[in-house]
Amino acid sequence: MIRRTFEKFGYLPLETPAMEQLSVLTGKYGEEGDQLIFKILNSGDFLAKTSPLDIEQGHKHLTRKVSEKALRYDLTVPFARYVVMNRNEITFPFKRYQIQPVWRADRPQKGRYREFYQCDADVVGTNSLLCEAEIVQMINEVLTTLGLTDFAIKINHRGILAGIAEAIGEKGRESDICVAIDKLDKVGQEGVRKELLERGISEEAVAKLEPLYALEGNNEAILEQLQAILGETEEGQRGLQDLREVWQYLNKLNSKALSTANESGYPRLMLDATLARGLSYYTGCIFEVKVNNVNMGSISGGGRYDNLTGMFGLPGVSGVGFSFGVDRIYDVLEELQLFPDSSQVGTKVLLVQFDKQSEVYALPVLQRLRDAGIASELYPEPAKLKKQMAYADQKNIPYVILIGSEEMATGKLKLRDMKLGEQQDLTVDEILHHLT
Amino acid sequence: MIRRTFEKFGYLPLETPAMEQLSVLTGKYGEEGDQLIFKILNSGDFLAKTSPLDIEQGHKHLTRKVSEKALRYDLTVPFARYVVMNRNEITFPFKRYQIQPVWRADRPQKGRYREFYQCDADVVGTNSLLCEAEIVQMINEVLTTLGLTDFAIKINHRGILAGIAEAIGEKGRESDICVAIDKLDKVGQEGVRKELLERGISEEAVAKLEPLYALEGNNEAILEQLQAILGETEEGQRGLQDLREVWQYLNKLNSKALSTANESGYPRLMLDATLARGLSYYTGCIFEVKVNNVNMGSISGGGRYDNLTGMFGLPGVSGVGFSFGVDRIYDVLEELQLFPDSSQVGTKVLLVQFDKQSEVYALPVLQRLRDAGIASELYPEPAKLKKQMAYADQKNIPYVILIGSEEMATGKLKLRDMKLGEQQDLTVDEILHHLT
Repeated sequence: MIRRTFEKFGYLPLETPAMEQLSVLTGKYGEEGDQLIFKILNSGDFLAKTSPLDIEQGHKHLTRKVSEKALRYDLTVPFARYVVMNRNEITFPFKRYQIQPVWRADRPQKGRYREFYQCDADVVGTNSLLCEAEIVQMINEVLTTLGLTDFAIKINHRGILAGIAEAIGEKGRESDICVAIDKLDKVGQEGVRKELLERGISEEAVAKLEPLYALEGNNEAILEQLQAILGETEEGQRGLQDLREVWQYLNKLNSKALSTANESGYPRLMLDATLARGLSYYTGCIFEVKVNNVNMGSISGGGRYDNLTGMFGLPGVSGVGFSFGVDRIYDVLEELQLFPDSSQVGTKVLLVQFDKQSEVYALPVLQRLRDAGIASELYPEPAKLKKQMAYADQKNIPYVILIGSEEMATGKLKLRDMKLGEQQDLTVDEILHHLT
Repeated sequence: MIRRTFEKFGYLPLETPAMEQLSVLTGKYGEEGDQLIFKILNSGDFLAKTSPLDIEQGHKHLTRKVSEKALRYDLTVPFARYVVMNRNEITFPFKRYQIQPVWRADRPQKGRYREFYQCDADVVGTNSLLCEAEIVQMINEVLTTLGLTDFAIKINHRGILAGIAEAIGEKGRESDICVAIDKLDKVGQEGVRKELLERGISEEAVAKLEPLYALEGNNEAILEQLQAILGETEEGQRGLQDLREVWQYLNKLNSKALSTANESGYPRLMLDATLARGLSYYTGCIFEVKVNNVNMGSISGGGRYDNLTGMFGLPGVSGVGFSFGVDRIYDVLEELQLFPDSSQVGTKVLLVQFDKQSEVYALPVLQRLRDAGIASELYPEPAKLKKQMAYADQKNIPYVILIGSEEMATGKLKLRDMKLGEQQDLTVDEILHHLT
């Protein structure tokens, strides 16, 4: 469903290698992230290029000497590397999606795995806010199609956060403010206050932030309250204007993210001025998605970056992208019991064999079923009937064909419907007709 | 197509993690293979558990101290590990397929990559030779569906090789004989002779092998000639009997691998008594597939193993499996120009925008197209028409919708067929009708 949605919106698939040069990855995810990168030991004699001095200097220094490659940590940085390397072949705006595993040397726990799939869609080479609107549309479409009904797409803008910093008298300190506010969900308002003070934000400025936590009402009301907080700050105005334009696009697209209300009574897409997103490369709109009434972190997120490719020597290419955390979505769907019974498509027919003779009889039947495109199996041994039926049961095979001596004599085989527990005597033609 | 075929034969998908314990992988692929395993540097202070003595002992010893995990080298060993770990939950016979990348620290060259996909199908927990016959069927079906017509499915049996060793007076030396014969394609008959002598096979025995290279005729003829070489050797008889039974199954299944002749005039499935396959865990039938008239190694291979899970403590579970090398198949299809034009499915319609007004007009049209399941894009900026048309061209988008002031006035939009170069004035309803 994620693939289908991405493609419907004009995104094409891309895959990049699991390994990148270590130097491509380090320094992009903060110091904490760098430590979580899985490094590949150089092949052959990895000690050949090291001296005793290198070893004395400890593992951090030595890592660079014994490891040149690493496993990708996300799909965004490899994508930026790819765009820069292929900039002469790529047609911009470049819309690509990428569904591949990434690896992080984290302590595994629910919703946090060492290997997990990311599903990214990014468009680079345009400033148009239509892209942001379409991201909201794609998130809404995918989650709705998967059967989710009560979820919140939170949106904010780095300009709003910069404007707030300026308005409270801490211009240029938005990075510290973001890092602190980003933890609001985890540590609460008091925790954020404490961290802000620790990071050197003045008591006065922290106090001025209070109205930010008290914003309420619908999106229009919040925009107005924000306007009052932001005043005439240039960055704040940029943020407000961009967000208003995203809303205009969504209105014209009849967006269900705006017209569908959650249990809270508010629409799915809500402006959240305290949404910060940890990653430092975002410069415009930012997104985060949470499923309500489920114990799980965000299942999707993203934002606009004006200079992601700049770190690889190609400045001035703006892009916007987002990612689905499929493993988390999987866990959520399990918790809400939203996986349909039929999601595991397997064998449709099992032919039971009693002896060599019935096996020989069954082989051309098996071939005819497969020629008709029906997934079928002949149990490979003349095991006890009970065992063969248990096999069908455990593999959730809906039909079983039984071929005994009577069936071989008459040409009418027993077709058993495993769900209904009924069986019919049918010719092979009738069986094919029945099953297709 | 590979997935669809596997599922039609009753195989279900499985994925295992990219990383395995290093100890799970080492010792399974020979010394050469062990060196090609990508090892993961332990996280954190990987030197903490090492002493200066460990470092003095060199990289081979140190590897075990600084690396606990590694990237999988193939899909077979992780599968065996999985079967043993989950033996109490698995229903046997267990049929699974697995399509995932594997990694080898090889020198990259055409048809040999450091990261490449393997597509494995295995069934464990049955001795039935029906499984071998079905592997031949699956290989034939996948390659035929991909458009290949001239390919050879070579089959042999480890019992034949053991029987030959015994018949030439070198009983138990089949491993050395296999390794040498395995290189026949690369080094020729004289090269194999030389290697056999180097490996201590007697001059007399090597001479007795000569008839093996001179086998000719159809499968029946080769079986007869082999019978003469093998005499009454027990292993040889086991091999011949198994192969004859595979043929019987294929006949009953109306196998096209038997009934379709290659350019050579012989059927696709041919017994090749010099086929050895490097891997030591094979014990029964072995397979290898080559496309004729193409410069590429084997694109598929496999065989029966009686004790693969034994190395993880679960003996006595026989299995048989095979693998497609998709990257090689990809290269072959490219070389033979067998990829259809339509294999890249992308955007179907691009809406061109001239100005803000036409963008606003286009948005609900875009939404209606997508609601109808048509992959569509609105060019995100009012760029020059030439640039937008070039975008459609490079992305191979077959239809473009142009919305100018006249179109907005009449409600009839210009739908341009990019292949035919023709355009029609149509309402949105008519466009939807035309495209679906």
